Amino acid sequence: MWRLYQFPLCPFSRKVRLLLSEKGVGYELWRENPWDASDEFWALNPAGRTPVLHDPEKKTTLCDSRAICEYFEETVDQSPMINGTVKERAEIRRLVALFDENFFTDVTGPLLQERMKKRIVLRQPPDSRRLREAMKMAHGHLDYIDYLIDTRPWLAGSRMSLADLTAAAQISVADYLGGIDWSGHEQSKGWYSVFKSRPSFRPLLSERMEVITPPAHYSQVDG
Amino acid sequence: MWRLYQFPLCPFSRKVRLLLSEKGVGYELWRENPWDASDEFWALNPAGRTPVLHDPEKKTTLCDSRAICEYFEETVDQSPMINGTVKERAEIRRLVALFDENFFTDVTGPLLQERMKKRIVLRQPPDSRRLREAMKMAHGHLDYIDYLIDTRPWLAGSRMSLADLTAAAQISVADYLGGIDWSGHEQSKGWYSVFKSRPSFRPLLSERMEVITPPAHYSQVDG
Ligand SMILES: N[C@@H](CCC(=O)N[C@@H](CS)C(=O)NCC(=O)O)C(=O)O
Ligand SMILES: N[C@@H](CCC(=O)N[C@@H](CS)C(=O)NCC(=O)O)C(=O)O
Repeated sequence: MWRLYQFPLCPFSRKVRLLLSEKGVGYELWRENPWDASDEFWALNPAGRTPVLHDPEKKTTLCDSRAICEYFEETVDQSPMINGTVKERAEIRRLVALFDENFFTDVTGPLLQERMKKRIVLRQPPDSRRLREAMKMAHGHLDYIDYLIDTRPWLAGSRMSLADLTAAAQISVADYLGGIDWSGHEQSKGWYSVFKSRPSFRPLLSERMEVITPPAHYSQVDG
Repeated sequence: MWRLYQFPLCPFSRKVRLLLSEKGVGYELWRENPWDASDEFWALNPAGRTPVLHDPEKKTTLCDSRAICEYFEETVDQSPMINGTVKERAEIRRLVALFDENFFTDVTGPLLQERMKKRIVLRQPPDSRRLREAMKMAHGHLDYIDYLIDTRPWLAGSRMSLADLTAAAQISVADYLGGIDWSGHEQSKGWYSVFKSRPSFRPLLSERMEVITPPAHYSQVDG
């Protein structure tokens, strides 16, 4: 059985969980905090990052969320998530990078630092200037999602794809940490609430990470 | 004809150039500095990053170096670079992420900031503490390459792959900026010098970026 090394607020692990669930691949959760990683974990992933997917019986280890998603896209036919023409596939991968890198650097990363790491690891107060900056950047990214959803039912085109899973994974962590103000983003909100009601998403929304509590709307499907 | 938006020291653009050259795909270079990007460039890539590959006639735009490489892997049979079993392909992609993300964050990114951006954009002196830290991190990454090359002819296994192109692209920029001390890294040095003599690599090594000059060994094949 696959074992997923992760922690509840890791957006890259959430993307992998959404993909595995959409594709009907079973796995068990294995808690690992990268800031406090075990030697066993470093041996599995020399980059020291979550997610890692490991099958002890098959002696298979997969690292990096994009490499993991490509692996399951190549091995499991159900619910293709990097699908279509070569141009469409390039568009999916462009958006995956945009959310994994730009959205993470601008929004999710700073929120995790200020509201998770400072609270439960560093025991410092958050930097309110950095939080305001991250929330401002979130508006810019939601504007871009509004724009995409104005012309396409899903982020990368006519079908749900890894771009949607990636964006939803990042946004869900930012939303948990109180970083998303949905007002003025009707298209993004509509797209995200369809997502929130999917069976793949429900387990993520019901999890909590230690003392950190999300805002009331976080796990409400119509929130 | 493909037009590659890039600047000479962008490691992600170098990876794409190596791949296109190995695959025999023609393109023209188009200079773009992301810190000073034109509106035309932002319209092509809402992430505002190089590399972007654009074909004005075909009206095709590809963004993000990994998405670009996957596109050419899917469309051009010559010199497969993400090849082998699904496990081997996952290993290639793991290493691509390791060099694009960890090596870049630890080494190439800080060197570009201190030795390129501060020199030609910000007109500030480099922070010598950050430079020392980046060079120390480079040693750690070269240790890992030494370890891989001890057991495999190429980074991801028995064949040259996108992992090698990615690592070589990052290392070449770090080396240009004086951040690589090769002493004590015989395996890495051997692997890299084989690479440096490839026809795909030669044009990169002869280019210079403005007033920034590389160390003498940088473009010597036996250096
Ligand atoms: N490219 C990686 C990024 C993973 C990543 O950055 N994970 C974070 C947790 S959300 C981590 O482990 N950070 C610890 C570190 O970078 O040292 C992926 O897509 O899997
Ligand atoms: N994931 C991207 C990263 C590209 C990237 O970070 N490019 C740098 C230049 S080396 C850039 O454009 N930085 C400007 C910015 O991030 O605003 C890729 O692989 O293409």
